[in-house]
Amino acid sequence: MRRVAIVGAGQSRFGDFPGMSIKELFAEAYAECAASVDRGLSPKAIDAVFLGTLGTGGFQLGQPAALLASHVGLAEVPSVRLENACASGGFALLSAVYAVCAGVYRTVLVAGVEKMRDLSADHVRYWLGVSGDTEYERLAGLTFAGIYAMMARHYLSRYDVPRIYLSKVAEKNHAHGVLNKKAHLRRQISLEEAQNAPMVADPLNLFDCSPTSDGAACVLISSEDYAARFTDRPVWVLGYGAGGDHLALHDRRDWKSLVATRDASKRAYEMAGLGPTDIDLAEVHDCFTIAELLAYEDLGFCNRGEAPSLLDKGITRLGGSLPVNLSGGLKSKGHPLGATGVAQVVEMFLQLRGQAGDRQASKHRTGLTHNVGGSGGTAVVFILGRDLD
Amino acid sequence: MRRVAIVGAGQSRFGDFPGMSIKELFAEAYAECAASVDRGLSPKAIDAVFLGTLGTGGFQLGQPAALLASHVGLAEVPSVRLENACASGGFALLSAVYAVCAGVYRTVLVAGVEKMRDLSADHVRYWLGVSGDTEYERLAGLTFAGIYAMMARHYLSRYDVPRIYLSKVAEKNHAHGVLNKKAHLRRQISLEEAQNAPMVADPLNLFDCSPTSDGAACVLISSEDYAARFTDRPVWVLGYGAGGDHLALHDRRDWKSLVATRDASKRAYEMAGLGPTDIDLAEVHDCFTIAELLAYEDLGFCNRGEAPSLLDKGITRLGGSLPVNLSGGLKSKGHPLGATGVAQVVEMFLQLRGQAGDRQASKHRTGLTHNVGGSGGTAVVFILGRDLD
Repeated sequence: MRRVAIVGAGQSRFGDFPGMSIKELFAEAYAECAASVDRGLSPKAIDAVFLGTLGTGGFQLGQPAALLASHVGLAEVPSVRLENACASGGFALLSAVYAVCAGVYRTVLVAGVEKMRDLSADHVRYWLGVSGDTEYERLAGLTFAGIYAMMARHYLSRYDVPRIYLSKVAEKNHAHGVLNKKAHLRRQISLEEAQNAPMVADPLNLFDCSPTSDGAACVLISSEDYAARFTDRPVWVLGYGAGGDHLALHDRRDWKSLVATRDASKRAYEMAGLGPTDIDLAEVHDCFTIAELLAYEDLGFCNRGEAPSLLDKGITRLGGSLPVNLSGGLKSKGHPLGATGVAQVVEMFLQLRGQAGDRQASKHRTGLTHNVGGSGGTAVVFILGRDLD
Repeated sequence: MRRVAIVGAGQSRFGDFPGMSIKELFAEAYAECAASVDRGLSPKAIDAVFLGTLGTGGFQLGQPAALLASHVGLAEVPSVRLENACASGGFALLSAVYAVCAGVYRTVLVAGVEKMRDLSADHVRYWLGVSGDTEYERLAGLTFAGIYAMMARHYLSRYDVPRIYLSKVAEKNHAHGVLNKKAHLRRQISLEEAQNAPMVADPLNLFDCSPTSDGAACVLISSEDYAARFTDRPVWVLGYGAGGDHLALHDRRDWKSLVATRDASKRAYEMAGLGPTDIDLAEVHDCFTIAELLAYEDLGFCNRGEAPSLLDKGITRLGGSLPVNLSGGLKSKGHPLGATGVAQVVEMFLQLRGQAGDRQASKHRTGLTHNVGGSGGTAVVFILGRDLD
């Protein structure tokens, strides 16, 4: 297997930007990505553009990749859109990695974008709902918060876990997000505030839900033999894996675990020749707080039912031995669907290179990113690492 | 570069099926594909599912790949959707080929699906319109027929070509489609009928436009070392290439040629070590009749402005030396957007193996498929061949 390097990364601010189009959000991310390339980036070096988006908030449903590539001077560069709902960005990176490993392209720009804040509440519900099973979930009245609430109820009851552990995830991720100037909800919240927020879908309250956000993110990947043209300190893709499951919850084997995450991480660990104990830090898919608890267990960071103890011991908090979602996660940083999976890798690029400022992890040799499509119909995991000193 | 084999292929009927869902269309194509595998197909052999669709006619916009995979017993298999408007199917195959070449997967199911006939005329216009530039084309009132009409006017006037050559494409492709029991518009039309059809966007009349269709198509690809588990007579992917361009027509260098097609075919020819004169037959993207004329020239089948002579000489007709669109093409076979690029490869699989019945090409060693996204923002070309006897 050829090695693939990440040689640049950048993202737009995440948040509510009524005055910015998808083109402008993308251009902001692309500019930061280009500026991050140590030896500079000529647009001519880019062989292809892979874009992840659920649908750009409904604005440009066909060929958004060609539209955005052209907007930043990359017209006539082959482009393609990848879509797996909230994992669109992660799957765009995955397909780009395949293309570089296959020897077809040397350097690929991978991007994710979504513009959700222009939409009405009904329209947002529609754009989230289309990531579940249309016939048996969305049209039957099940919202996305409802789907995750069902998983949360099952998990809390099966392992006899108090609801406060959902709020502990929110409190932790907001504490991290305060340190990230790109974060959408950049404010500290107390455990009390998190517990007493208005109920959305019992047991998930408002502070258990990630926000809908506008945003874009980019990473530049390169084949091993070209990486040195861009930088002396690339971040390497050590392993990757994808997983799948039934789209509809009622068809699944299990509700307190995501088969797609388990399979994706198993494949990524195997390829990297590493295990969960080798991971120094992670960005996991906390679209709802319950999802972070499930991720701890599905990624092998702890045993079944023991996710709460990681929070109690501060293990997954900044300063802990395995900090999770130092960016603020989807919960505080924001969740512009297609951008999320790419932005996780942007954060890991900064962390592994020691460039994450106030939220820098102390150990930062090997990191994991975990991106879930909808309620777990698909998932993708990357294991990234820097060269040994 | 590892070799990739096509070891199975099948498609649903294309047409107007109000009683069939996207799941049922997909299942029909999958069943035919599975049945075409000489040594049989166990679902367990499928490592991943790559799906091309613009948006399943708006029905399941998020993670349709997971939904459809699960419907045919492939739940828990990683899946992903690729989208490049009308080239979604071709780009799904391209990304799947990357993944097999990268050594990640051994056997991948590639599918395309679209369900367009449930939509109102306004909704169809919307779903086609989203494949152009939303701001500067769709919202400004330009329809897709309008975009291709502008290209047609430019081509006809620049090379002083009479309008009848558009109708000759339609007449030829319907003559082929009559021989294809899967075709949507399976009827012969005379040159007079083609010329006298009601005008849609001058100079394109109704018979210059492909229909909106329901349909699905599947191909099964495999790495070289696994191909023999499925068949002794695989079809090989000899070369492939993608190209890109500005999404909006007004930004392009040229209107009488698609840069994306030229670049895609150049890359495919180079990889295959072949040129246009080595191609025995082709399936090209005739969404509008003008597009087939442009394709002849962009693919190097003739010089600039000489496409009409290929029609005059019968070269691209069944029995000619380089038959084009023996399936009937998008024009007669139908154009369910995401299915089209995959269905072109299904046709080539049959033709190269000598299984195309009444419409079988006499020479059938090397074939080319050509799939265009929208008005040419993206394009993908495959060169396929069978083993020498």
